[in-house]
Amino acid sequence: MPTKEQISEWFMSLQDSICLALENEDGKGLPAGQAGKFKEDNWVRAEGGGGRTRIIQNGNVIEKGGVLYSAVHGPIPDFLKNNMSGDNHSVNTESTTPDSEMPTPNFYATGVSIVIHPNNPMVPIIHMNVRYFEMSTGVWWFGGGIDLTPHYVVEEDAKFFHAALKQSCDKHQPNYYADFKNWADDYFFIKHRNETRGIGGIFFDKQKQTKEVTKKQLFDFVKEIGNTFAPTYTILMNKNKSLPFNEANKQWQLLRRGRYVEFNLVYDLGTKFGLESNGRVESILMSLPQTAGWEYDYQPAADSLEAKTLSFLKKGISWA
Amino acid sequence: MPTKEQISEWFMSLQDSICLALENEDGKGLPAGQAGKFKEDNWVRAEGGGGRTRIIQNGNVIEKGGVLYSAVHGPIPDFLKNNMSGDNHSVNTESTTPDSEMPTPNFYATGVSIVIHPNNPMVPIIHMNVRYFEMSTGVWWFGGGIDLTPHYVVEEDAKFFHAALKQSCDKHQPNYYADFKNWADDYFFIKHRNETRGIGGIFFDKQKQTKEVTKKQLFDFVKEIGNTFAPTYTILMNKNKSLPFNEANKQWQLLRRGRYVEFNLVYDLGTKFGLESNGRVESILMSLPQTAGWEYDYQPAADSLEAKTLSFLKKGISWA
Repeated sequence: MPTKEQISEWFMSLQDSICLALENEDGKGLPAGQAGKFKEDNWVRAEGGGGRTRIIQNGNVIEKGGVLYSAVHGPIPDFLKNNMSGDNHSVNTESTTPDSEMPTPNFYATGVSIVIHPNNPMVPIIHMNVRYFEMSTGVWWFGGGIDLTPHYVVEEDAKFFHAALKQSCDKHQPNYYADFKNWADDYFFIKHRNETRGIGGIFFDKQKQTKEVTKKQLFDFVKEIGNTFAPTYTILMNKNKSLPFNEANKQWQLLRRGRYVEFNLVYDLGTKFGLESNGRVESILMSLPQTAGWEYDYQPAADSLEAKTLSFLKKGISWA
Repeated sequence: MPTKEQISEWFMSLQDSICLALENEDGKGLPAGQAGKFKEDNWVRAEGGGGRTRIIQNGNVIEKGGVLYSAVHGPIPDFLKNNMSGDNHSVNTESTTPDSEMPTPNFYATGVSIVIHPNNPMVPIIHMNVRYFEMSTGVWWFGGGIDLTPHYVVEEDAKFFHAALKQSCDKHQPNYYADFKNWADDYFFIKHRNETRGIGGIFFDKQKQTKEVTKKQLFDFVKEIGNTFAPTYTILMNKNKSLPFNEANKQWQLLRRGRYVEFNLVYDLGTKFGLESNGRVESILMSLPQTAGWEYDYQPAADSLEAKTLSFLKKGISWA
């Protein structure tokens, strides 16, 4: 059974391999000195643990991106206890001792989070998170997700992306892709705009051992998803990074990035968790783009590529 | 005693006079055809009431701004009931009848909201809101606020702004300025950045009749604040709109606007209220700037104007 240390170490190695793959693709064909490079910041959490934040800015393909690893631990903060009492995975679920007599359990949380904002509006934004959480009470779970936000939806690319995720899911459980694709549709949704953030992907949380699935099998699945990221996204970078674009495309990109900001600041649970837990702000908000924009009541012209993109930003589209 | 209709009508006239004053200042010295103009959208709320949204984009001084009037009413939505039960102004406070036997009371909410984002980074961003709320149970209150967010804090302007607010407050109650200035320091605060949004101003909520203050007196105070907006801000526009600026100043403006976006999407109660009540999104999010930016871990040079500005973004500074 994989231990938290083994899981955390694997996440660290995933950060390494993804940064390498992204730097290679970003700098392909350029002299070594001109390629974008990740800058690393190590940080320590006062209450226990810390992280390794890697940020790339003003690369050749990537305008701003982060690949973050962290492993934090310590007594469960109050906001987290309250947060968990609202679902069926409450801290004390597996005990009949009243709260007041329980010592505060410890938690351990580790994971990798990625957001990449490309310069060229024809290259999609991507996000991935894989994470593991456990408590000293013995409760543990895995979670994760990966979703694509094209500024312009290209059906071929959307199908390719979802097919890659489906292939990875299908190696593990027959229901994973369908279940987690629907979960992503619901999660990556900007309610006040009645729009999905992009073309979705997969999302899953609180995956625990069951009669059918062992901890090792869950970890293997999470590794599979983590390993799907780099080969899939670098293909999309490579395919689209040299496509021409004009000022109007850049303006549209700003508006789509504005929606990305809205999602992350209003709905994203990782961001909320981070800000409420007094996390490292610069790491949490690495997800925000270098520039974003808002225009009052913007309506794309009928039959434009922008209008076509909007028509794809809804739940329930079968891409795979 | 002023009725809700009288209050609402006055707010409508305030919107008129402020839009006129802003257009005049924005277009001063220009041929009539070249001056920025507010565009008006009237909207209707399905459950009752509606609003008159006025937006100016790409003016001469104002890059993007909104002056919004609304008056909405109907049965109190559930989210609002829950929202109010957390404080001491619960819907049923003034009744001993159990919830289940009470018919759902009606509410009426009217007000004016303004956010102005100027083009020149030497001109400050400004926000004002004045509002009135009442319920069919007889409960009512006034609220409001006005705060200034300079991209570059100029002490002379900050003192001028606060002095104008203090003068308006002092005509009504001796404690208003001190109390409402502190309230603004607490309200316009970006907790995760440990920064105030700007140099503050005044903020007040749930102002009800007391032994000392009648409803008419409260309304007179709210009118005073509403009338303070245009003469104060147009002076700041006029004083700063022709100051030179460079690309670095524009970059810094983008980052300050990014903070503005963070405040509005993460903390602002009006925005939360609007999004949760399924309000008109384009009106609610008019507060967001045409462009904003984020740079990872940006630190201004020591002794720069940017560093000086940051040093002023804290609570408890006595400007007046």
